[in-house]
Order: sequence, then C-alpha cells, then structure tokens
Amino acid sequence: MKIVMLSGGSGKRLWPLSNDSRSKQFLEVLPSTNGERQSMVQRVWGQLNRNNLVKDTVIATSKKQTEMLRKQLGYEVNIVEEPERRDTFPAIALAASYLFTELNCALDEVVSILPVDPFVEDKFFEKLFVLEDIIQSSNSDLALIGVKPVIPSEKYGYILPETSTAGDNLSVKQFIEKPAESYAKELIEDGALWNCGVFAFELRYIIEMLSDKGLPTDYTTLCENYNLLEKNSFDYEVVEKAKNITVTKYDGFWKDLGTWNTLTEQVESNVIGKGVLDKNLTNSYIINELNIPIVMLGTESTIVSASYDGILVTSKESSPAVKEYLDDIITEPMFEDKVWGSYRTLEHTTTSESDGVITRRITVNSNIQSNLVVNNALTTWTVIQGEGYLEIETEVSRIYPGASIQFIPSKTYSLKSINKLEIIEVSIGSKSNGLGVTFDLSFRSKLFNS
Amino acid sequence: MKIVMLSGGSGKRLWPLSNDSRSKQFLEVLPSTNGERQSMVQRVWGQLNRNNLVKDTVIATSKKQTEMLRKQLGYEVNIVEEPERRDTFPAIALAASYLFTELNCALDEVVSILPVDPFVEDKFFEKLFVLEDIIQSSNSDLALIGVKPVIPSEKYGYILPETSTAGDNLSVKQFIEKPAESYAKELIEDGALWNCGVFAFELRYIIEMLSDKGLPTDYTTLCENYNLLEKNSFDYEVVEKAKNITVTKYDGFWKDLGTWNTLTEQVESNVIGKGVLDKNLTNSYIINELNIPIVMLGTESTIVSASYDGILVTSKESSPAVKEYLDDIITEPMFEDKVWGSYRTLEHTTTSESDGVITRRITVNSNIQSNLVVNNALTTWTVIQGEGYLEIETEVSRIYPGASIQFIPSKTYSLKSINKLEIIEVSIGSKSNGLGVTFDLSFRSKLFNS
Repeated sequence: MKIVMLSGGSGKRLWPLSNDSRSKQFLEVLPSTNGERQSMVQRVWGQLNRNNLVKDTVIATSKKQTEMLRKQLGYEVNIVEEPERRDTFPAIALAASYLFTELNCALDEVVSILPVDPFVEDKFFEKLFVLEDIIQSSNSDLALIGVKPVIPSEKYGYILPETSTAGDNLSVKQFIEKPAESYAKELIEDGALWNCGVFAFELRYIIEMLSDKGLPTDYTTLCENYNLLEKNSFDYEVVEKAKNITVTKYDGFWKDLGTWNTLTEQVESNVIGKGVLDKNLTNSYIINELNIPIVMLGTESTIVSASYDGILVTSKESSPAVKEYLDDIITEPMFEDKVWGSYRTLEHTTTSESDGVITRRITVNSNIQSNLVVNNALTTWTVIQGEGYLEIETEVSRIYPGASIQFIPSKTYSLKSINKLEIIEVSIGSKSNGLGVTFDLSFRSKLFNS
Repeated sequence: MKIVMLSGGSGKRLWPLSNDSRSKQFLEVLPSTNGERQSMVQRVWGQLNRNNLVKDTVIATSKKQTEMLRKQLGYEVNIVEEPERRDTFPAIALAASYLFTELNCALDEVVSILPVDPFVEDKFFEKLFVLEDIIQSSNSDLALIGVKPVIPSEKYGYILPETSTAGDNLSVKQFIEKPAESYAKELIEDGALWNCGVFAFELRYIIEMLSDKGLPTDYTTLCENYNLLEKNSFDYEVVEKAKNITVTKYDGFWKDLGTWNTLTEQVESNVIGKGVLDKNLTNSYIINELNIPIVMLGTESTIVSASYDGILVTSKESSPAVKEYLDDIITEPMFEDKVWGSYRTLEHTTTSESDGVITRRITVNSNIQSNLVVNNALTTWTVIQGEGYLEIETEVSRIYPGASIQFIPSKTYSLKSINKLEIIEVSIGSKSNGLGVTFDLSFRSKLFNS
C-alpha cells in the first residue's frame, strides 16, 4: 500500500496565524509527548511513523508548502509538487503518475488518500490496512473510512450505507453533503457515517482514468501538461462516478481542526505566547505570536489570536466566519518560514518618495550557504547577532554584530552563516520592482567551497 | 481669576493606548468640530479658549508630560513643572507660588483648580466665574462645583450640602467617597452632588498655609525644596481641613472619561484605525494604533485596543480592572511622542551576545535642529524618507533616502531636517548603557547656524 497525503489549504480559516505561506497544518499549537508543541502535520506524521507507514507515504502539495513540509518533517520526505494549484483530482492524479513511473509501483498497488489534518487516535491508522484489504479482496472500486457521528453536525459530509445492519464494512448507497440538522439526525438513525476524506483504490483505477481521458500517465509528461487537467475535485471526478464503494466504520475520536473553535479545544494551555487572562475566564484563549502582551478581561468563550499579519478577536461560536471578513484586509504574509531561516516584516510602509519601504528581521540558520538576489531597491543590512562570511563579487569579508552592508544591485553577493545570524534589513524601492534581498540556495559560491 | 489645570495620571487605566509618557488626556480619540480627532486636553483647552480663560491658565504637570502638552497646546502655554512626582497638594502649592512670585498675582487673586479630563458642555466653564464670585463675596475658604448626579454611581465622591433646599450655591456639610449604591441613593435624595474636582480659593489661603508650615512661598526656592512637601493629596491637606465650603450646582453633562468603558461612549466611530467589526456588533469598539488589522466577530459590548505597547481585549464591564493586570507586563513605552517628532520601537530583543537590541522608527519633524547624544551601543541609521543635514565633528553632509550612518561614540553629531525625516535605527548594546541615539534640542550646532 502507498499513501498519498494531501497538503493543501488556503490558510484563511485560521487567520491570522495561517497565511498563504503557512497553512493551518503547520501551526505548532498541539501538545506533543515530549512537552513541546507540534503542528497537525507533525502529529499525523508521527502517527504514520508509529504505524510504520512513513516509508510508503508521498505528500502531494503546492510549491508554497514544500519548504515548510521539509522544515517540519525533514528532507527525506517524498514530495510531489504541483506545477500550479488546481484541485484535488489533478493533485491525486499527479501523485498516482509519480507512484507509477517514478516509484515504479505495480498497477495493482493499493493507494490510500489521507488529508493532512485529521485529529485522530493512533488506531485510526489501522483502518488504512482494512481499506487495503477491501480493495484487494472485493470488487470495490473505492474504499473509504466512515467516522461514527457523535452529533448531527451540519458541517460534515455523510456516507449512507445500503443497510444499517451490523458489520464494519458496508456497501455505500449515497453521499450527502452538509445536511440540515434534522436530516442529519435521520441519516444517523439510518446508520450514516461522517466522510473524513480517506479513500483507497487500486493504482490502475486512476491510471486508466487518465488514459481514457487521453492524458499522459508518465509523471514527467503529466507535469509538463498539468494545465490540461480540469480543475475538478476528486469527489466530482472519482467518488461520484464510482460503481462499487465500500465504507469501513471507525468508532473512535476524530476531529476536524479547521476552525479556531475546534482547534482551541485541543491546545493544552489557555495562553500560548505573551498574555494575561482574567482569572475568571475558563473557556477563553490567547494565542499570541507577537512580542507585545495581550490582556483579556471579562470576555468568556472568546478567542484572541495575534500574529504579524493581524489580530482576531472572536467568540468561539463566530470563529468559523473569519474567512468571510478577510477579503479586504489580507495583504502579503508578514512572517515567512524558510528552509534557511525566516523573514519577519517589522514594518511595511510607503513614503512620499517611494511606494514601498520594508523593514524586516531576517534569521539565517547556522551553516547556511546561499546566493543573495539583489533587486533595484536601496537595501541595507545591519547584523545584530551571529557571524558569517559575505562574498561581494570576488571578495570575502567577515560579518558580525554591528556590521552594516549597503547592497549595490549590479554586484553579486553570497552569504555563509557560521552560527545563527539575525539581520535587520531596510529596503526602499517600489512594490513592483521587489524589496529586500532574496535567498537562492540553488546557487552556491565557488569561493566558499574552495 | 487664575486657573491651575492639573495634568497628571499614571497612564494605566487606558492601557495600552496610554503609557508613562502618554497619559489618557493626550489620546486623540474624541470627535472635534473640524472633523479631525482631538484629545481630552485639546478639548478642554478649546473650551477654556471659548470662555476667554486661556490667558489666565497655568498647567501644573510633571516633566514627562511637558513635551506632549506643548505639542498638543502650543509653545505659549504656561507650564509649572514639578521637579519630581509627589501628589496633588505639592503640585497645587507649587503652582500657587508660581502665581505669587513669577506672575506677581495679588494675595486676593482667586485661583481655580481644574482637572485636565472633565468631559463637559461649554456651560460648565461659566461655573468657574460663579466660584470666583463666591470666594470674593462670601466668607468661604473654598468653593467647588457639584455635578447633579444622574445615577447612584459607586465610583464617585459625593458632596452633601447642609440643606437640600432650593438655590444653586449651598454650604457644604460633608464629603462622602465612593458610597455603596443604596447609600448613594439616599445621598442623592438628600441633595448630594458629585465632586468633579474643581475647587476655588484665594491665593492667600495656600500661600499662608505654606508659611504656617515653614515652607518657602517663593517659586524658585520652593522648586529647590520640593522634596520637603509631604506627598499628600489636596483633599487631605486642604479640603478636609477647610471650615467654610460652598458648592455651586452644575446641572448639565459631565463625564469622567477615565476608563475604556466611559471613553468609548464618546468616540464617534466603532472602529478607529485598521479594523473590521462584525456587522451585527453595535456596542463593540476597535481602537487600533498598530499597522496590522484587527477583526472582531461575535463579541458584543467588547473593547479591543491595540498599540505598540500591547493589546487589550475586555468586556465593557470589566474594563476598569485593566490596571490590576498590568504589573507583570508593562515594560518601557513602545511609542514616545516628542516635541521634535517621535520614537516608535519596532522590536526590542536580546541576542546571545547582547542584552539589548532595539529597532526603532524615528520620525523627525521638518526644520528641526538637534544635537544627537550617542551612547556606547553600536548604532546604525538608515534614512527612509526626507532630507536633511548631518554634522559629524566639523563636517556637514546631506542625508537622503537610502543613506546609512554608523555612529561612532567618540564623535559629536548634530542633525538638521529639511523636510520630515523617517529613519530606521538599529542599536546593539546593553540596556544599562542605553540604546539608540537621543535628541538634545538644548544644544544647537554652530555650523548650522552660521
């Protein structure tokens, strides 16, 4: 069996902690066994690991998330990067072609699709082996996990089996998306289960589907022709058209941590980051990534979340609505996690002479070598911590706290950090021409290597 | 008549918008007739002006507030600066000695004490002339304004007259501080009025009190011996000991804008600064000085206030309690308004090598000349807007956007701005030795003047 983990998400539902370069699955807010906090993706990865499934897993994701995945899970993970964002069917089809021609999987290999954000017990992962068994030993086109509902929620999709008789593996009659509460109650009485987005099929099933559509099945060719794949969901292209579908029942803890409301129920402390909570508040939460303190008084069942992108104050009940309010205010991300370190915008402003002035704190991890791409802005660095070497054209000089560098766009620069470097960058130019220095790790200076 | 306006306040009750260098009376949140926003002190000053009282007013304040008062009210205001913070009696006594020996007021001059923050109608100020008349034409030691109560509030002090008979000017029987609601009801039935902190007396009354205590009555000498004055309130030293006190009744709008709860009732918009309020919230407020947006959803009767010092989220009801929660979190102010411009801390952090690294945005108003005091930190400036001249020892050079200056502690520096300068300063050193460059306007370069 191979597992394709889907890591997508627009990052809006958990604003302001998630943004376009940092989706909810990367937020390190969940408790972990070693006392530190972990992200959703780290938690799921640990669970796959305990079930000895990591070696069989590839991650289908977009270019924007690749760096964060490598940072949180390590460099050895198998990543299938979409050439552009389309939808779940193209992403899964591309991963299937990768398994077929890059990993040379047989056509009868069972492939399981796993979302990146299920918050479940370890035993949930045992169900993946049940899916494999169903695909191998029955005539089912698709097998999926159905979660035993605990409330008649209107937020989920429901899977209605042919019969509500006993047995863990049942033939699927119908899918119902987000029913009204009264209908959801009826469905639950009829034995319906929640759809948690975990599907299994034979690799052949998707590869033949690509062939039938006249699309390439070879990974490299499919990458080059990715725009030929229609922007359709896997549900629309595959699930709705499948003839024989079997659902296996999972009777255990499962939760969608997609909103602040549900996420805060899993955090281990009411205050993460700098903050003080009124001692009478038991169901309110502060999650603060800023350097300034938050004080919350007298507001029960309220969540305050702050990052360099913005501040959200919401009742738990209203938290799922945050997405609707963001269109007018989301600008560029103020914090960007990178493989080599991070950028954090301290201020982005305009002046009477210039439509873009940015002050950023740049953290460069120890022992990083990178080419620096300098644009046409007037850019100055002041080193505030750490030491390293800066190569300007053919000259190498040492940099240290207090050193100041004024970049000249016509020259070439490379950086090598000895220990962790902290730099304040001030860049004056225009938004359209780009601001600040960009790191390009693909190019490494010959001088440093010699 | 002379008016002594008392401008004090610790700045904690309206945290995070007020801090040690910017008290509540300077917050520009109140509507003004020209459509811009004004501060409490600007509002009161405008009202004094409309009553032709500005020329007779001196402001008693602390060193920390002098710059802000001059910035908001202009350079011509008469300021009596306390050599150190003591209490209201010493501050008023010092102002009295200033009237006596610096302004040469006669001993029968009537002096009215006015807090800086009454939120009242213009007609309130007409009552000051009534106080003057009472002192001049009766044997009262003290005269004060009593506000007709509108609710039996537990927050205020009450003035009980001898009789509850008709008439606007009544003899005072007793003062009652913050009574329980039931007692406050009884008091109101007996004709009690709210004490709004406005008192009048003959200058002789305080000057003789100083003499009787063996204290100097000359302003300069009293300044030098200010520490001899006990830290007592005017209430304790004067009001409680006065024999004949008359109260004049004010039947009009009066409000203490000392807490977020009462202040937000006077602002003209539910959102000041960057923010989006859930459209169903009618009694909630966002007051945001940060560059990042605040989104508030589903929390009725809630106030969110954010500045570079911190973020407060509070129910209207709980807002007066903010003071109690600040001891652990208040550090140095992140924003400081100065006569020449302002400092704003973008980040104050520590590194492995240094216990203090500060990144500040410095705004220098146009046409400012100042000596720059450079400490032992490694300090770099990057000019991001505006032009000016920098004098280093005996050399003058022009500065402009993109210019970078590395300060050398052994050298002397002076700055002259042509138009408004915006500068990013990065300073690496230690908290104890000071960080960044300090402006000293008392010294002006000879080179610039020549």
